[in-house]
Amino acid sequence: MDKIGIVERIKRLSTKKTEKMFLNDFLLTWDKSRDELEAVFEVAEILRGMRENNISPRVFDSGLGVSIFRDNSTRTRFSFASACNMLGLAVQDLDEGKSQIAHGETVRETATMVSFMADVIGIRDDMYLGAGHTYMKEVAQSVSQGYQEGVLAQRPTLVNLQCDIDHPTQTMSDALHLINTFGGIEKLKGKKIAMTWAYSPSYGKPLSVPQGIIGLMTRFGMDVSFAYPKGYNVMAEVEEVALQNCRRSGGSFTTVNSMAEAFKDADIVYPKSWAPYHVMEERTKLLKVQDQQGLKDLEVSCLKNNKQFIQWECTEELMQTTREGSALYMHCLPADITGVSCNQGEVAASVFDRYRVPLYVQASYKPLVIAAMIFLSKFNNPAEQLMQIIESGRTRTGA
Amino acid sequence: MDKIGIVERIKRLSTKKTEKMFLNDFLLTWDKSRDELEAVFEVAEILRGMRENNISPRVFDSGLGVSIFRDNSTRTRFSFASACNMLGLAVQDLDEGKSQIAHGETVRETATMVSFMADVIGIRDDMYLGAGHTYMKEVAQSVSQGYQEGVLAQRPTLVNLQCDIDHPTQTMSDALHLINTFGGIEKLKGKKIAMTWAYSPSYGKPLSVPQGIIGLMTRFGMDVSFAYPKGYNVMAEVEEVALQNCRRSGGSFTTVNSMAEAFKDADIVYPKSWAPYHVMEERTKLLKVQDQQGLKDLEVSCLKNNKQFIQWECTEELMQTTREGSALYMHCLPADITGVSCNQGEVAASVFDRYRVPLYVQASYKPLVIAAMIFLSKFNNPAEQLMQIIESGRTRTGA
Amino acid sequence: MDKIGIVERIKRLSTKKTEKMFLNDFLLTWDKSRDELEAVFEVAEILRGMRENNISPRVFDSGLGVSIFRDNSTRTRFSFASACNMLGLAVQDLDEGKSQIAHGETVRETATMVSFMADVIGIRDDMYLGAGHTYMKEVAQSVSQGYQEGVLAQRPTLVNLQCDIDHPTQTMSDALHLINTFGGIEKLKGKKIAMTWAYSPSYGKPLSVPQGIIGLMTRFGMDVSFAYPKGYNVMAEVEEVALQNCRRSGGSFTTVNSMAEAFKDADIVYPKSWAPYHVMEERTKLLKVQDQQGLKDLEVSCLKNNKQFIQWECTEELMQTTREGSALYMHCLPADITGVSCNQGEVAASVFDRYRVPLYVQASYKPLVIAAMIFLSKFNNPAEQLMQIIESGRTRTGA
Repeated sequence: MDKIGIVERIKRLSTKKTEKMFLNDFLLTWDKSRDELEAVFEVAEILRGMRENNISPRVFDSGLGVSIFRDNSTRTRFSFASACNMLGLAVQDLDEGKSQIAHGETVRETATMVSFMADVIGIRDDMYLGAGHTYMKEVAQSVSQGYQEGVLAQRPTLVNLQCDIDHPTQTMSDALHLINTFGGIEKLKGKKIAMTWAYSPSYGKPLSVPQGIIGLMTRFGMDVSFAYPKGYNVMAEVEEVALQNCRRSGGSFTTVNSMAEAFKDADIVYPKSWAPYHVMEERTKLLKVQDQQGLKDLEVSCLKNNKQFIQWECTEELMQTTREGSALYMHCLPADITGVSCNQGEVAASVFDRYRVPLYVQASYKPLVIAAMIFLSKFNNPAEQLMQIIESGRTRTGA
Repeated sequence: MDKIGIVERIKRLSTKKTEKMFLNDFLLTWDKSRDELEAVFEVAEILRGMRENNISPRVFDSGLGVSIFRDNSTRTRFSFASACNMLGLAVQDLDEGKSQIAHGETVRETATMVSFMADVIGIRDDMYLGAGHTYMKEVAQSVSQGYQEGVLAQRPTLVNLQCDIDHPTQTMSDALHLINTFGGIEKLKGKKIAMTWAYSPSYGKPLSVPQGIIGLMTRFGMDVSFAYPKGYNVMAEVEEVALQNCRRSGGSFTTVNSMAEAFKDADIVYPKSWAPYHVMEERTKLLKVQDQQGLKDLEVSCLKNNKQFIQWECTEELMQTTREGSALYMHCLPADITGVSCNQGEVAASVFDRYRVPLYVQASYKPLVIAAMIFLSKFNNPAEQLMQIIESGRTRTGA
Repeated sequence: MDKIGIVERIKRLSTKKTEKMFLNDFLLTWDKSRDELEAVFEVAEILRGMRENNISPRVFDSGLGVSIFRDNSTRTRFSFASACNMLGLAVQDLDEGKSQIAHGETVRETATMVSFMADVIGIRDDMYLGAGHTYMKEVAQSVSQGYQEGVLAQRPTLVNLQCDIDHPTQTMSDALHLINTFGGIEKLKGKKIAMTWAYSPSYGKPLSVPQGIIGLMTRFGMDVSFAYPKGYNVMAEVEEVALQNCRRSGGSFTTVNSMAEAFKDADIVYPKSWAPYHVMEERTKLLKVQDQQGLKDLEVSCLKNNKQFIQWECTEELMQTTREGSALYMHCLPADITGVSCNQGEVAASVFDRYRVPLYVQASYKPLVIAAMIFLSKFNNPAEQLMQIIESGRTRTGA
């Protein structure tokens, strides 16, 4: 993308209605309008273009990006750090082990105390059903109130880095990957995507990726085929969201109980393991009361149950049944690769290897998507701001 | 505060004698002159004004702020990070668990090794009586020597983020809160502040807040009523400091053994738990020899002793006895709130709730106060520097 | 150094051939040409001069320096952070405990995932023989491939912060210390340096410092006397490198089994403990299979063996035998000092004390050397870039 291309995109961005994103959070994609989603894609691509042209998009001369990771993470941590850094924010991690949070501080108090100089808060909290999204809303409410009461000089905005319901920075990156692979958002209409469960030797994987995918891809008029073994259903509310999306977008949402059916003539396949909803519910209860024996028993029974579906693997044979035998294979990574990272997993090594480059490209959008979400929540005139960056001519690297 | 207000404050700052702060540390408030304390308040308010007017006070184009936390901390960690970030310094944490410090390095060597590019060092070390302040002086001496010997290119200055004796970033924030609440530093003269012990179900809380409060508020001609149950006394040296301060400022310092007496007609109340001096002494000894059983026994006996004073709670009834029933309630947070964070604690939930906003405002000064301390230690012409920032017109946020 | 001195050095730098350093890694000093080593010294000194003249060498407006520490570290961690900060990069630590790396991710995938916005990667991996350097090459290959395949927008370059073979940021700092002490790189020719083993009550210390020293100092025509007790030999490949270096440089490389012989008439002494190569080999095997009992047994036998050579200490008596009794004493720190950090160690307290200032100066070069390595790997016109920094006149500190 050259400078002319960047400017064209900025013009396109200026036609999108994004006022409601200003000083607002990005928690669930289905809370956002089509214009708002498209604005995220545009800004992400503009930022990529700027980087390619050695233009620095630093719009903060100082400021903090607070990160709260309630689950381990490498790629999301680095993506958030990269996004903050690109815009000029320093990351300050709220490490709950190191802090006094465990000692009876309320969410409101802690949220306020870390926000005096915070411009953005990124949260990953995907371990407990019914907890992550609720926690994010509590934090959002706390800092809103703090801003209204004059306690906070600015309203830090939240970016959901994965909760129990949605994983918007992942699925928006996935969508941008599809847009660029198929040549435009309008090209996604009518494409069949198979979001399917796959076998993994581990258990307790969050539901947020499959939920996020069915809740987002149905926005673009895609035919979403959702496949999982009996019992591995996800939150009913999100399935309802997917159905409603289809009514507006002209897409379709079908649930099937066979990987083969989902893969048949698919343009895109996204085979990935997750825990059954009822197991996650049970696990949440046990975690709350710290029932270690109960957790061990649940793991054993769940792994045993998983084993029934060991044939749910993305094999070369299944890939052959997709559109022209060449569907785009997607994964949020890391994948359980048969014979590589485990004996028997989600995907055959040869399939994974063939798609390694597109998988890495898929992942590469995340820092840009996060930066776009931050950018759109901090400026009510994003197109104008981006134009000024271009005009200032500040280089990212070099004296 | 608008730009004119900021410039007025800068003029006022220029009348204060602050030369001795240059390349010097901020360890104890009573080592600082009245002018120096007032300079901190002015710079803190100027920095707040700048932020409100989207002016970036970044005076470092690069540089490190080293943080050494020998005790857990959320709010102080974020305050230090915010202060450094605002001025352009990156925080580098000296995590003694991760480092080789345990393997026989001397304080001098480590202090030097982390300081080659350090502009400021923030230290929290409040666990052991007789240790924290001593450690800070050792570090200060080491880096002074390193600078004199030509080993260090600059003299990193120290900010005491809490030691066994004082907690100057807290108490200076508290004082600034009082100044703004009562309409000026001169308005504090003659105001009665009750610094009182309060019951908490935990034990071993540091003495630095009560010590810091009696050592600072007596500077401003306040009537400091210091209340605690028999045996819960603090360091005698600091009580002596408070008495001496009063002789100069015209204030008073009275020790009483009843919360009710302290609260009577008070303009401000600061009820907070702390451990008795002799318990902290005993605990320090046991910690040094890692006597786990001794520590457990001490905790049991101390908690049992605390229970005798369970009625030392900041209740609505007690608040009614203060000046017009509406004294300002203060706390350094987090507080032990009865029925909220514990069964029976330092303060009634309704009192705490009523003062939630002022308590958060009180906390909000800390990043600004720390930044002011750093600023005044790094520039021998602070008013001139601040004027130049205004004139440069660099915005904090926006292209 | 004044501005004229800096400009002179920049001119000298412009005569060095450094094109191959561009987008390349710094893993082993013997992979670099004499011109390239000298360029590192020049840039390090130029950066020091800039700092002394309050000129900010920030050439990145944003960007990440990724640090991967597979062994504890204070000084190297701070040196890397300082170097990155000086150039404008934010450090993001890849903490493998916090990340998902343990869960079956390949080196290639992780290296790519952390590199989307990374300009440099600093790695310390010195625990296992045959592992550290191999790992670094794998990471280098991964990011090269990622760049070629269009996955990465830039090629992050690697800096070896210590591996099983070499410790180039240490030894290059050591060499710069020698250059400045003796008045120029050409003055090192013919100087005798004693790189000798010394007794330490700990075991398992890496071989990278002695290996790095013999592999580097032989480049400058020095007479390297390498002394260790029977059995404490290092990697034969590196001894071969040292011998080859001598053939080109006119220096000499002699292995002796006595500290006294090495010290005799030495201009420089570098007494330091390390584990015997065969012990490190055995330890690597045991660590790989997590044989805890085997590791304990090895430690016991190794410490027992060490004790035979307890007289290998850098004493005043030995120092007397060096050139005019005043050889320069060097150590990478922390040292095991007899009667200070241990009962009986590598060096007598009086010797260490006498050389404390030069030892700290020696350490002070590391941030500059790392920054120079980064600078030379990121710009193909380093002299021009440095000239532009001087001309821009941006100050490091002050409004």
